[in-house]
Amino acid sequence: MSARTDLMRVALAQLNATVGDIEGNARRIAGMVEEAREEAASVVVFPELALTGYPPEDLLLRPSFSDAAGEALRELARGCEGIIAVVGFPERSDDVYNAAAVLADGEVAAVYRKMHLPNYGVFDERRYFQAGSEPALIEVDGVGVGITVCEDIWEPGPPATSLALAGARVVVNLSASPYHAGKGAQRERMLVQRARDSLVTVLFANLVGGQDELVFDGQSMAIDQDGRVVARAPQFEEALTVCTIDPGAVDAARLRDARHRGAVLRTRAGTGAEARARVLARLEVEPAWRPGEVGGPVADVMGPEEEVYAALVTGVRDYVEKNGFDGVVVALSGGIDSALTALVAADAVGAERLTCAVMPSRYSSEGTRADALSIAENLRARLHVIDIGEPMEAFDSALAEPFAGRDRDIAEENLQARIRGSLVMALSNKFGWLVLTTGNKSEMSVGYATLYGDMAGGFAVLKDVLKGWVYRLVEWRGGREGRELVPRSAIDRKPSAELREDQSDEDSLPSYELLDRILAGYVEEDLDASQLVRRGLPAEEVERVIEMVDRAEYKRRQAPPGVRISARAFGRDRRLPITNRYRARQATLPR
Amino acid sequence: MSARTDLMRVALAQLNATVGDIEGNARRIAGMVEEAREEAASVVVFPELALTGYPPEDLLLRPSFSDAAGEALRELARGCEGIIAVVGFPERSDDVYNAAAVLADGEVAAVYRKMHLPNYGVFDERRYFQAGSEPALIEVDGVGVGITVCEDIWEPGPPATSLALAGARVVVNLSASPYHAGKGAQRERMLVQRARDSLVTVLFANLVGGQDELVFDGQSMAIDQDGRVVARAPQFEEALTVCTIDPGAVDAARLRDARHRGAVLRTRAGTGAEARARVLARLEVEPAWRPGEVGGPVADVMGPEEEVYAALVTGVRDYVEKNGFDGVVVALSGGIDSALTALVAADAVGAERLTCAVMPSRYSSEGTRADALSIAENLRARLHVIDIGEPMEAFDSALAEPFAGRDRDIAEENLQARIRGSLVMALSNKFGWLVLTTGNKSEMSVGYATLYGDMAGGFAVLKDVLKGWVYRLVEWRGGREGRELVPRSAIDRKPSAELREDQSDEDSLPSYELLDRILAGYVEEDLDASQLVRRGLPAEEVERVIEMVDRAEYKRRQAPPGVRISARAFGRDRRLPITNRYRARQATLPR
Repeated sequence: MSARTDLMRVALAQLNATVGDIEGNARRIAGMVEEAREEAASVVVFPELALTGYPPEDLLLRPSFSDAAGEALRELARGCEGIIAVVGFPERSDDVYNAAAVLADGEVAAVYRKMHLPNYGVFDERRYFQAGSEPALIEVDGVGVGITVCEDIWEPGPPATSLALAGARVVVNLSASPYHAGKGAQRERMLVQRARDSLVTVLFANLVGGQDELVFDGQSMAIDQDGRVVARAPQFEEALTVCTIDPGAVDAARLRDARHRGAVLRTRAGTGAEARARVLARLEVEPAWRPGEVGGPVADVMGPEEEVYAALVTGVRDYVEKNGFDGVVVALSGGIDSALTALVAADAVGAERLTCAVMPSRYSSEGTRADALSIAENLRARLHVIDIGEPMEAFDSALAEPFAGRDRDIAEENLQARIRGSLVMALSNKFGWLVLTTGNKSEMSVGYATLYGDMAGGFAVLKDVLKGWVYRLVEWRGGREGRELVPRSAIDRKPSAELREDQSDEDSLPSYELLDRILAGYVEEDLDASQLVRRGLPAEEVERVIEMVDRAEYKRRQAPPGVRISARAFGRDRRLPITNRYRARQATLPR
Repeated sequence: MSARTDLMRVALAQLNATVGDIEGNARRIAGMVEEAREEAASVVVFPELALTGYPPEDLLLRPSFSDAAGEALRELARGCEGIIAVVGFPERSDDVYNAAAVLADGEVAAVYRKMHLPNYGVFDERRYFQAGSEPALIEVDGVGVGITVCEDIWEPGPPATSLALAGARVVVNLSASPYHAGKGAQRERMLVQRARDSLVTVLFANLVGGQDELVFDGQSMAIDQDGRVVARAPQFEEALTVCTIDPGAVDAARLRDARHRGAVLRTRAGTGAEARARVLARLEVEPAWRPGEVGGPVADVMGPEEEVYAALVTGVRDYVEKNGFDGVVVALSGGIDSALTALVAADAVGAERLTCAVMPSRYSSEGTRADALSIAENLRARLHVIDIGEPMEAFDSALAEPFAGRDRDIAEENLQARIRGSLVMALSNKFGWLVLTTGNKSEMSVGYATLYGDMAGGFAVLKDVLKGWVYRLVEWRGGREGRELVPRSAIDRKPSAELREDQSDEDSLPSYELLDRILAGYVEEDLDASQLVRRGLPAEEVERVIEMVDRAEYKRRQAPPGVRISARAFGRDRRLPITNRYRARQATLPR
């Protein structure tokens, strides 16, 4: 096949931006622009708010912040010759807009303002931005290229449909679309649908990397007008993916397909404003011609465990690196949660930067202690063994008077956890290590954790991982290694906090299998007691769990941030009052 | 003066609702409706979302929650005869609206939907609600009564101006307007202006009481068309304020004042939709006639210290009572912050429910120790003295190996604070008391506090009180008592954390006087370094403080909630990323 001159070479710049690091982000954007130009791309697309990182939250309320971004943008534009770069930035004019700038010929040639501002889940965009009011496109060598930002393209109607009717053969989408398990596949289905809806080539450039609780998974893509994925960037990695698209095929398809206009009009909200999209700039590029076929590299998509594990590793790595920690410390109990936390930590920052603290008490069994040591050894991490017997006795003696005549209870159990918390924090303070906490989502949901004890630390790796998934991930990671990382005994042992003799988690909680099903329904799907019971879950346990979840809100409010891997994590996407007398456990439950 | 039949008797129901307690709130609303009817009021106005409490946050995402509120509303309506009640509730129909229901003759006679949804500061209303689209009024015995909800009336134009032009002589406003220092006066000025703008009587019913970090100050009011406050409810107290208004005077004023229409039209946004307000219901009431003059009780407004102190007491009391704690415990250091915390606690829940823990170490001076004991004694609170020497030694010995060859530093200092934190939490766990933490806003801003140490606890009383204000409040409260509560030596002593020999806060921080000025500018006004320097603040200290504030974000994220008394507290109204490389301290600072 001979080179066709109506093909277009484009680049998807899957950037790992750092929030607030305008200078650093601009430098990396400039580097990727240069790389794309060397690869002879005509257009390179960056993610939403690439210049500032996403989400910058209340930094956007400081005028100097948006001004600094605008300054950096103009500086970037000056270096932009022989290629067109589309870059996300916060535009401050009469108000602040979530905008996409088109950089070409040394200038900011055009600016599009995001029309659909999400204000649900983890998003607060109406707090910061004014919505744009009209769809916009540019022409590149005569080819209409529509511009959209993230949420814009999730809407089935305008602006995408308007752009297509106004002549766009390509629709670019700048995104900062956060990860949760299965999101990549869901998002890909949506983008395929949009390409088909409007018979356009979709160029989707997504952010990658961790930002506090959010992880962005990348998986940028080029999708042709028939919904074929012609290029796909890898998940969870920074990447510049260059590919060749065929805008001419869009015309051919539209000519062939008399349904085109009808297809566009059939989509929701597709009436009225259809063809009203402004052409902001007509641009020409002369890249060094690079022959080639339509398409580009198509990265494989990860399986479910691989994907979640990669998200955890990315979240931890970026939290550590972007905040400048020398290393991390994990308290190993010999149980499965701390084992997984240590595995993720070692993969994220390297075993040489991981310290494991094993802190046995008189209630620790020989088995858990031995397993903890094995895990540290298998990972080849630094190890400190610190016995907490003496501090326990010192607290008992200090509290002898106020506690006189009282039975031992949860107060003494929590003290053990708090002694351990104080010890890992002492290591953190002395050596500059970040403390990674080890509690999982099942425990965090029902408050089966000690504030300032096992909850003490800077980042909660498994905060959004239900117990059942902890097992799946340990098994999956073990399988990949080909040698034993976590001893079988640690996986098979009945879960216990070991804060008193012969304790078992199931003394206080339903079985984790049942607990996880109730939590999936109550926390992640907002179902009430009656709906859960109709799913066949036992009414008594449902009520008990819902009550525990509601009561533990005050603990979660003081929990460290952790990686979000579900569609409803305990963070920005679940905002509940602490003072709250609503009892969802009773909601219309038949009595 | 003889009784005039064109007067109207109205009641402002300043309710202390509890979030989520739909049943309890409904019961209290019914009680106040009954009381207002006994007082011969024709109309009784309740606060915004009175049925659910405010803000219910993500409870609003559960359909069963709004449904339960709707159910309770209809039940309330059934008891509403011989009086008209206007009650705030979340209305679920095609979407969810922040609505005001008009209850009359045993039915829900009309529903108005809030038009202006605040989505800034502490507000997230666009996350939950759809905006209403049209101004609405009712007629009560032939008098047009316009209905607005909170933010609606802060807007100078519609709906208030539209309502006036459409014939409203009275505009009611259902509010949940949170307190910050000076807010009451600011709000009163605004309401006076609105009454004058549109020549209407304004009836403002505000929520009262604490909800997590927010405190609502009440101060409900009736304001006549000339801007005179004819009735005012007390601040920070539940109250039913009944007064007589004169809608006829509105007509007279309008006839007299040819400027009326012009005045309305001059206000911002006052074009186009002016007179488009729908009359939702025409109602008649026959209350037992009660003669009287125009007006009602006018409560005095508190002075600045009294007001802030009352806000703190209200916030603590409602957090304790609404969450069902038996009592509270405060760690007294002998310093001024813990002294004020204990004063507020005693006033909030009574000294008999307050326990003071004094926990000296080898670095505690005789003076601070003696002062701590005096304060507990003066307050007549329960006292536990717990020496932390032994736990300190036990930790030193446990950490001997990992810390071998290292100098003593912040790690050991923090351990002392964490031992104290663990001890008060042990008291909390054993006896069911809420731990009140004692750090002030100046310290919280710069991170001069120990996570899981002095920050360990359920509620941070002074979280939003700058150090300078801590002194003002202690002096003011002492003056009110007429006997010594806090020894002079505790007030005059140089502030110190006493975590090492001869430590002083000013070793690590600028003077509090300077620190507070920088914080007021940077945190509360969003000013950057250059703007602060232009105010005459020293550049080096400005940069140092800004850096400390930015770095401490991770600590604040794990801090307990506390009472908001400023326009920018560390809570819902300041949302910054932890991972954040933006350096506002350098913003355009001349070098």
